[in-house]
Amino acid sequence: MSLKKKQKHICNFSFLIFVLMAVSSFSQIDPQPEAKRKVKEMEKKFSLAIHGGAGTILKKNMTPEKEKEYLLKLGEALDAGYAILNSGGTSMDAVVASVKILEDSPLFNAGKGSVFTNEGTNEMDASVMDGKTLGAGAVSGVKTIKNPVEAARLVLDKSPHVFLSGKGAEDFAKQNGLKIENPEYFFDSVRYFQWKKLLLEEENNEKGGGFLSPSEIEFNVCHEQKFGTVGAVALDKSGNLAAATSTGGMMNKRFGRVGDSPIIGAGTYANNNTCAVSCTGHGEFFIRLSVAHDVSALMEYKGWDIEKAGNELIFQKLTSLGGTGGLIAVDSKGNITMPFNTEGMYRGFIKEDGRATVKIYKE
Amino acid sequence: MSLKKKQKHICNFSFLIFVLMAVSSFSQIDPQPEAKRKVKEMEKKFSLAIHGGAGTILKKNMTPEKEKEYLLKLGEALDAGYAILNSGGTSMDAVVASVKILEDSPLFNAGKGSVFTNEGTNEMDASVMDGKTLGAGAVSGVKTIKNPVEAARLVLDKSPHVFLSGKGAEDFAKQNGLKIENPEYFFDSVRYFQWKKLLLEEENNEKGGGFLSPSEIEFNVCHEQKFGTVGAVALDKSGNLAAATSTGGMMNKRFGRVGDSPIIGAGTYANNNTCAVSCTGHGEFFIRLSVAHDVSALMEYKGWDIEKAGNELIFQKLTSLGGTGGLIAVDSKGNITMPFNTEGMYRGFIKEDGRATVKIYKE
Repeated sequence: MSLKKKQKHICNFSFLIFVLMAVSSFSQIDPQPEAKRKVKEMEKKFSLAIHGGAGTILKKNMTPEKEKEYLLKLGEALDAGYAILNSGGTSMDAVVASVKILEDSPLFNAGKGSVFTNEGTNEMDASVMDGKTLGAGAVSGVKTIKNPVEAARLVLDKSPHVFLSGKGAEDFAKQNGLKIENPEYFFDSVRYFQWKKLLLEEENNEKGGGFLSPSEIEFNVCHEQKFGTVGAVALDKSGNLAAATSTGGMMNKRFGRVGDSPIIGAGTYANNNTCAVSCTGHGEFFIRLSVAHDVSALMEYKGWDIEKAGNELIFQKLTSLGGTGGLIAVDSKGNITMPFNTEGMYRGFIKEDGRATVKIYKE
Repeated sequence: MSLKKKQKHICNFSFLIFVLMAVSSFSQIDPQPEAKRKVKEMEKKFSLAIHGGAGTILKKNMTPEKEKEYLLKLGEALDAGYAILNSGGTSMDAVVASVKILEDSPLFNAGKGSVFTNEGTNEMDASVMDGKTLGAGAVSGVKTIKNPVEAARLVLDKSPHVFLSGKGAEDFAKQNGLKIENPEYFFDSVRYFQWKKLLLEEENNEKGGGFLSPSEIEFNVCHEQKFGTVGAVALDKSGNLAAATSTGGMMNKRFGRVGDSPIIGAGTYANNNTCAVSCTGHGEFFIRLSVAHDVSALMEYKGWDIEKAGNELIFQKLTSLGGTGGLIAVDSKGNITMPFNTEGMYRGFIKEDGRATVKIYKE
């Protein structure tokens, strides 16, 4: 090869490298920001917290098997919400998915396994709230809707109203294709036994042969195994907050009693400026204190962080009034708080790292 | 008469005067502080405000006779509450008495004269709250209780619950001796005509022959003559606040729709630390904003006065969200505010001077 040819060859080779580099650099214009966007998307914060009710939950009354069952179901509910949030889904989809898992389990007092009313029926309440739009949906006193939380979501999405009740709410759900079950579906033998035992205590007492005073029975109804409302709160990757709550209400309830679970501002609240909250406990106190909205108001108007605001409601206001229960809340930065003034609260949370934490008793 | 006799007479006379003065002065030991106490009691501040609903109330649509009827009835409701407050009665007694007068009048959409549901029935909601104890009572979907506000009061006084609904609430009221009426009692021909006209518009529209779009019909339902919730708020001489709200709800409502009136924190709230609030308007927005509790929260946490807090809710938050309506509120010093973002609101107030003010339109 002559020198001239060699030079030409080198020249061609240099040109080829130049072209290759240029092509490579051009081709990187598109993929690099896309990859960065994906990484950024994956790094985006999100949070999910759930509860399965607060009450006198004591380790001594729990078998290791039962405890495991609860923890596994809470974990399953977290997984369902996590999958949605991790893939960029909305906080509303996530809280509804988590609550559905808990409604479908007879372990909790919501959906299947709801407690019995004084008339021997199961009457359920639920609500949801979207922190971005302040849109809300709620149902109360429904007896045949498999997942009351889906009915609440339907009211938010497809009704000009916020709160539908009783047979009307059921008709609305049916017309919109929600899954309906026979009343037997909601039956759970453990709940039935609890209710029958309570009726027996009351009857025995009325005849003067009881060991419990009416106030002790009331205490049992309110403070022991009769709670078990479920709920979820979440922050999604887009920075939107949502909350959902669902319950079978208070055991042996009469006169169409409605608790705090379907009451926006009492049992459920969400506002992108502050937080999303779901409550559980002795509902009457949560209504009188507008607990869920008050957590948000303390954050918005006093600049308190979510932990301080949640603690104020549960350990100061609720406790002073003689009420028991707890709440879960997540703020717009993904911080979570889960205060309760009872012996225990079925609860759990998960964040973008995917590590689920589930707990039952006080720490 | 001899001089001696005269002197004795004078002496006796002086003695008599002395005795009279002594008796008089002794007798004043008791009455003087009593009189002072009475004067002090009479000077004590109290306040009462009422509303009969907010909406598109235009002078051009009102006859002078109709206007007079409204003003007289509002005056009558103020008188009833004033008599109680002036004689040292409680703010709770006063607000219930005022609301009863408005419920008994077919002019307002509460009690007798409630609007018709889609099924042609009258279904009423009411609530009360006591600012001293944060105790509350509410009923929803009741069809036969003459004065729903009395049922709400009964729930506060005699039930361990806060919120009873439907037939259960009626059973509770009956068992406790509240006055029950046949459904015909609540019938009002004007309301019936309004409802039939609306149904006709809807039917005509479905057949494609209507002049109004569904959204225009919805607008009519929500923004025109279909409001008319009533309410009262009061401060009594003991410094206690109370609030009461009562409604027939939204005309042609379906699916067991519940508005803000029976929702503590949305349509009704009272707290001796801040204020007592009763709302009226497009209930869904009032629920989503927790309006009644939010007025209190702005006062408690931001130190705002009642006028600024009320204005923020009605002219900023409610208006931004696209909602219409108004509220009445009284604070712990007796200051009253009555903001509304509609054309008019039936309203009035009275204070310890006994001069009643009643208004309908914007000033």
